[in-house]
Amino acid sequence: MTRGTAGTLTIDLDAIAANWRLLAERAKPAQCAAVVKANGYGLGAGEVARRLQAEGCRWFFVAHLEEAVRLRETVPELPIVALNGPLPGLERNFVEHNVLPALNDLGQIEAWQALAKRLGRKLDAVVHIDTGMNRLGLNASEVQALAQDKSRLDGLKPFLWMSHLACADLENHKLNLDQRDRFLSALAQLPKATASLANSSGIFLGSAWHHDLVRPGAALYGINPVPWAANPMQSVVTLTGKILQIHSVDTGIGVGYGAEWLARRPSRIATVGVGYADGYLRSLKERSVVFFKGQPLPVVGRISMDLITVDATEAAQQMRPGDEVELLGPHIGADELGERGGTIGYEILTQLGARYHHRYIGAVA
Amino acid sequence: MTRGTAGTLTIDLDAIAANWRLLAERAKPAQCAAVVKANGYGLGAGEVARRLQAEGCRWFFVAHLEEAVRLRETVPELPIVALNGPLPGLERNFVEHNVLPALNDLGQIEAWQALAKRLGRKLDAVVHIDTGMNRLGLNASEVQALAQDKSRLDGLKPFLWMSHLACADLENHKLNLDQRDRFLSALAQLPKATASLANSSGIFLGSAWHHDLVRPGAALYGINPVPWAANPMQSVVTLTGKILQIHSVDTGIGVGYGAEWLARRPSRIATVGVGYADGYLRSLKERSVVFFKGQPLPVVGRISMDLITVDATEAAQQMRPGDEVELLGPHIGADELGERGGTIGYEILTQLGARYHHRYIGAVA
Repeated sequence: MTRGTAGTLTIDLDAIAANWRLLAERAKPAQCAAVVKANGYGLGAGEVARRLQAEGCRWFFVAHLEEAVRLRETVPELPIVALNGPLPGLERNFVEHNVLPALNDLGQIEAWQALAKRLGRKLDAVVHIDTGMNRLGLNASEVQALAQDKSRLDGLKPFLWMSHLACADLENHKLNLDQRDRFLSALAQLPKATASLANSSGIFLGSAWHHDLVRPGAALYGINPVPWAANPMQSVVTLTGKILQIHSVDTGIGVGYGAEWLARRPSRIATVGVGYADGYLRSLKERSVVFFKGQPLPVVGRISMDLITVDATEAAQQMRPGDEVELLGPHIGADELGERGGTIGYEILTQLGARYHHRYIGAVA
Repeated sequence: MTRGTAGTLTIDLDAIAANWRLLAERAKPAQCAAVVKANGYGLGAGEVARRLQAEGCRWFFVAHLEEAVRLRETVPELPIVALNGPLPGLERNFVEHNVLPALNDLGQIEAWQALAKRLGRKLDAVVHIDTGMNRLGLNASEVQALAQDKSRLDGLKPFLWMSHLACADLENHKLNLDQRDRFLSALAQLPKATASLANSSGIFLGSAWHHDLVRPGAALYGINPVPWAANPMQSVVTLTGKILQIHSVDTGIGVGYGAEWLARRPSRIATVGVGYADGYLRSLKERSVVFFKGQPLPVVGRISMDLITVDATEAAQQMRPGDEVELLGPHIGADELGERGGTIGYEILTQLGARYHHRYIGAVA
């Protein structure tokens, strides 16, 4: 079976490994985890985790139990934390698969405790403390309740106290200091365990945010963790699409659905076999470019489900059906494509579709 | 293995079948195909095709060869057309898998012909004629060349002449008449074969657009083919997410990344385990609602990768972690969600992520 007309998504695991090492170095003496939720930000959780495990990564984070269970095939021994926590009644499934749910409220801690009692053994507890995100985690009064009544941790072994930053990618945002202070205040009340606050951007806030463990996700995949400065991370993803057809249109002729784009001169239009069903967002209409041998060609007309059309009139070099254009890669990264589409690079990566041929550089057997 | 914290995507194949029958009835005496590209608009090409085959559908359309090859497991005998056409050198792969590529230019027809010659047998030819979309297909002068030199079809059996409407969902758009006229003019020059122009919306333009075969996609899946009028199609998709946690925030407190949404009153915030990695677009931030037992709850704060937060202060009924909310379904369809997110229902459907539990109603064994 050949790899036909869809695009090729090349994922550079060497670059992901280099990014992880850079973050790990920066976070020292704290440990450095890897967040591989949403299928490793769309790039393949199994392949990424296998490589980072070989690099020395000893902690993995996902969102859902199902993601953790799948990851267990690749990461048989190391801690895997499922950030979205346990739903009532599913606690036992986490234990069965040796997955640690982030316990996000007192009720979840009680249920985890009850399970420990039923099993007749201590269970490791990962507790998520909300310090200002107001999305998941114990609030300050719940932390106080936990600290004041030691029996609330009976049967549990505190394993990880974690929190999550809301504004780490915003330089000098006051909430970054507030969240750190609240986290320290919570830790001061609680028994000792590994402590973790920083996401990718948090690592760059400084060592006061590093605690014992940092949890980068986005930066591993090449997203800029310091949007106000040059991106210190290596580029990870290259997406190419194939040119299916090149045709000529006269001045005044419309291209694509709604005939919204009109040629202002006799034009050569190249049709590429990637569309919004492949995650090339509709919002990129006439706001993006693709690159042919390094030369930018504007996207014209609406993005179709399976196709885009680009103005190839200026293509200096001969272009033929079957030739590839770069949709995402060294010339136009996920951050830039996100910005052009009115969103962020994270959404670009996680929406990359299933129809691409996935090619890995630097995969570990 | 339990179905944990991600959402449930319920796909009503009975509704898809009813939609197909409605379109087929409307198109009579023309035949009615089914377009199942992009994994059946995100809903499962195999399941949809299996059911529609049982309903009497005799033609299937996809975009890519790979999609066609996978569909062959479900549709062993009937024609499957790959709209994105053959890339140079891959013609033989189409024959191997009994897939018909849409031949989009004279060069592709020549290559198909050359293959027929090598194989020593006639090959069916599906030819895509561009009548105004300017995306894929033979232009008027190529059609003329094909008509005037009969040897260009030597070794080929004309099987389907097709074209595609650019503006069928725009009421009274002049291009609809122009495209039909250009298609008729092309057909008049060419040998007899099945002729097909109408997509979902084209079916509602009237019988003059029906020719021998209509090719609905979107309308099968519940998208309104007549945006200026009430949707004649049945609703197909219901997406529910689970409430992971409910917490209280005081007036003036921010929720989510960037702390952009600030509570204007003491509020109850429910966190739901679905995010933009699941296709709940970031652009829906504070522009959408979810439904809890039929009651709308506004989405507040930024959409996270794996989570959304909703204002549940007004939830009249008791809400508990584990309860479900409707993100997409009878109360808020794909068209409406698309409009709220600045896009169309098609993009909502095709971006629905892989982490949901998929549940089919009316599946055929």
